[in-house]
Amino acid sequence: MSATEPIRVTVWNENVHERRDESVAKLYPSGIHGAIAEGIQEHLGDRVEIRVATLEQPEHGLTEEILAQTDVLTWWGHAAHGEVSDEIVDRVQRHVLGGMGLLVLHSAHYSKIFQRLMGTTCRLGWRGGDDRELVWNVAPGHPLTEGVPSPINIPAQEMYGEFFDIPQPDELVFISSFTGGEVFRSGCTFRRGRGRIFYFSPGDQEYPVYHHADVRRVLANGVAWAAPAQREHTEPQIGRWETGWFDNQV
Amino acid sequence: MSATEPIRVTVWNENVHERRDESVAKLYPSGIHGAIAEGIQEHLGDRVEIRVATLEQPEHGLTEEILAQTDVLTWWGHAAHGEVSDEIVDRVQRHVLGGMGLLVLHSAHYSKIFQRLMGTTCRLGWRGGDDRELVWNVAPGHPLTEGVPSPINIPAQEMYGEFFDIPQPDELVFISSFTGGEVFRSGCTFRRGRGRIFYFSPGDQEYPVYHHADVRRVLANGVAWAAPAQREHTEPQIGRWETGWFDNQV
Amino acid sequence: MSATEPIRVTVWNENVHERRDESVAKLYPSGIHGAIAEGIQEHLGDRVEIRVATLEQPEHGLTEEILAQTDVLTWWGHAAHGEVSDEIVDRVQRHVLGGMGLLVLHSAHYSKIFQRLMGTTCRLGWRGGDDRELVWNVAPGHPLTEGVPSPINIPAQEMYGEFFDIPQPDELVFISSFTGGEVFRSGCTFRRGRGRIFYFSPGDQEYPVYHHADVRRVLANGVAWAAPAQREHTEPQIGRWETGWFDNQV
Amino acid sequence: MSATEPIRVTVWNENVHERRDESVAKLYPSGIHGAIAEGIQEHLGDRVEIRVATLEQPEHGLTEEILAQTDVLTWWGHAAHGEVSDEIVDRVQRHVLGGMGLLVLHSAHYSKIFQRLMGTTCRLGWRGGDDRELVWNVAPGHPLTEGVPSPINIPAQEMYGEFFDIPQPDELVFISSFTGGEVFRSGCTFRRGRGRIFYFSPGDQEYPVYHHADVRRVLANGVAWAAPAQREHTEPQIGRWETGWFDNQV
Repeated sequence: MSATEPIRVTVWNENVHERRDESVAKLYPSGIHGAIAEGIQEHLGDRVEIRVATLEQPEHGLTEEILAQTDVLTWWGHAAHGEVSDEIVDRVQRHVLGGMGLLVLHSAHYSKIFQRLMGTTCRLGWRGGDDRELVWNVAPGHPLTEGVPSPINIPAQEMYGEFFDIPQPDELVFISSFTGGEVFRSGCTFRRGRGRIFYFSPGDQEYPVYHHADVRRVLANGVAWAAPAQREHTEPQIGRWETGWFDNQV
Repeated sequence: MSATEPIRVTVWNENVHERRDESVAKLYPSGIHGAIAEGIQEHLGDRVEIRVATLEQPEHGLTEEILAQTDVLTWWGHAAHGEVSDEIVDRVQRHVLGGMGLLVLHSAHYSKIFQRLMGTTCRLGWRGGDDRELVWNVAPGHPLTEGVPSPINIPAQEMYGEFFDIPQPDELVFISSFTGGEVFRSGCTFRRGRGRIFYFSPGDQEYPVYHHADVRRVLANGVAWAAPAQREHTEPQIGRWETGWFDNQV
Repeated sequence: MSATEPIRVTVWNENVHERRDESVAKLYPSGIHGAIAEGIQEHLGDRVEIRVATLEQPEHGLTEEILAQTDVLTWWGHAAHGEVSDEIVDRVQRHVLGGMGLLVLHSAHYSKIFQRLMGTTCRLGWRGGDDRELVWNVAPGHPLTEGVPSPINIPAQEMYGEFFDIPQPDELVFISSFTGGEVFRSGCTFRRGRGRIFYFSPGDQEYPVYHHADVRRVLANGVAWAAPAQREHTEPQIGRWETGWFDNQV
Repeated sequence: MSATEPIRVTVWNENVHERRDESVAKLYPSGIHGAIAEGIQEHLGDRVEIRVATLEQPEHGLTEEILAQTDVLTWWGHAAHGEVSDEIVDRVQRHVLGGMGLLVLHSAHYSKIFQRLMGTTCRLGWRGGDDRELVWNVAPGHPLTEGVPSPINIPAQEMYGEFFDIPQPDELVFISSFTGGEVFRSGCTFRRGRGRIFYFSPGDQEYPVYHHADVRRVLANGVAWAAPAQREHTEPQIGRWETGWFDNQV
């Protein structure tokens, strides 16, 4: 994309806990999607145009048209993974392979779209307790880590622990430890087709993690990093080639 | 596995071309599965116990019981990918994540099970012409490459060309070139869950590639490499952990 | 770096063939460094500030001060690798680990600095003959591949063939084939310390490859990709830490 | 190697602390090398033939002849990295690239040979305090992890923390956490040339870590994993090839 065109971000959220659980509504009065959008906006300003989409909308707010106009999609889900329709999962996968960036956040490790793109169960160990999470940078100089200390110190957070059943990431960027001694590969990148995927685990409905300044900075870094060079999504093709076909390409 | 226990191999084939196309039946009188099984057997001898399974059998010959007793599964398909039931694909995926080795051969790049495990389209460019394939070793010392020259010279073969839409392999072992100038990542390894996957492209129903001595050696290398240390398949689990849970594990 | 600050590029060349071999002087009247600098400039314009440095200059033109002001260094050498002083190699390595980008071009595969950063011999097979090189994109969507066709078609070029003794690259971006059937991992990325390294093989003193439009575009892509986020080079440190030291970091 | 030939292991130790520091001599009465050799022997038995070599011997005990007869070399050093001669480092590197396996243990992260093979500083953060180390398996099914629990629980150990300045490993196998909250990539594999390298950090002269049953099992796993298929070390070569040279290879 030209440096002058804004990155078009769609922040997707299942939006279930916020409407059901008072504790979550209090932490995230504008929804988890609201907090994520604010965090991205405060760092990237005019460089982004943000829309939100949620599960209860027609086609979950992810029509073909909206995805075609999305450079980076962020995904948060937890209680309602099973309610996401397979047709929409197919569609999102197709756009990621065609070049759309994807941020997979926290409990979205267990979303259909992440399982689909990884090919594994994406299972892990967890505990909703009184853990402090420390997020260590193991790839200094990587654009995802700009502007944040190592470790990022999150005073209270759900614990996610290994073994995390994902393919070995293309780049391992962050590793977290928890008070209980567990560790987790909390920042991982994957290329799939033409698309870039960033999994980032800090963030939970019961803790104010999406108000944490460093976490918000990483979300913004993720959007900037995952944005494709080309706005049009072009899925990889299969084709029969004549000998010497490339001699005639422009 | 103990060094004295044989590796239990299941050679799976859709077994369609052999029964439909005279040219294929002539090249592979005992079926493509027969040629693959012979190639493995001639190199590994007593170290393997081989059974075959085909599409037309009940449950495609891949019952829960058979998979539970399979250390390494090899997969060949081309004309009938769509006829493989999703239930069996689920089952095979589960066993791979639990530790079963998987060899994905030639046109099985487009099988449901490979697409499932990769998370991508697995598309490529191709040509059934008069190409010579040269298979270059880019990982000398890797057990998959033992006993074969670099390049392996395959006089006549279908062309497979990049872009091959797969995740970046954990290890890239072979790269092929074709007379027409195309290149292909023809030997790739992937770890998924506890299982090891080896994709190896040489081999086609219209060319006698599975009678090629070097190709057969690589198939045997693949079986030895993909065999798990543990015979029992144990899929990764999700679980809630108390603080300090590991202090009590044996 | 702020999007408004230009990338400061130092184009380094041993500058030996151009002054010794008439054929090379004719192909590259402003030196190989001149052609490389022009190629970068024509694509990046105001986004770069380019200086050149050559072997025969004091400290090979790579003083501490110049390196401290270099965001991306490009390196071309062939006939005089042994004349590069170990002290300068130490210095360049230090700056790369601190964040300076490095483009290693063609025969610089055998330079001291590349061998130092790889830890391997960086040996390969080669032939100065009449080969056509086709450069295939195996990472579509990667910023290094923007704006060039796949394959890039180089009508006449020296052949470089596998096995190329390098560590497995972090990302394999281009694979080349040659008329003779050889293949080569011609575009490879490596992160070392905070620095990004791009090895790109097309380019030779006896062929006009650095006048090829697509090759020049890849050089420019490489500069943009390798530029660090931070202008100051900060080498990784060793240190003794008190328990809880991070609770006091700002 | 034939399954019936034993793996020839050379356990190298600088052997300085044991002769200088009473506390270390008490923990390791047969030397750190003695404890490492015992750990390997108790698990692999007849499958290995172990010799030891130390810094004070002529050529540090690593003559050309001994290295030529070594399938896997293990390296422990801490106080005397600078006393290892560059000539021996060159020689060890050459044998690793030719196929010899290498286990780099604990403080050998800062040895000349590891820095040489990595191309980076190999720096890290550390603390000799009262930390418990938990070593988590992030690659279940990998042969390096057979027979040990996750986490391995080491009651008292020196802390090693990120950022650890190494290239991204080919496979990340273990991640450790420490009581103080730090994390460390404690089990990493690298292929360099034909050789396999395993870095494993647990183990310190002031703690009885090499008497820990699980640590000893991992050392033995490492030896079995790093052993090359071919006994002869064959360093990658550079060479000029005629067109069609491979048509004549046997």
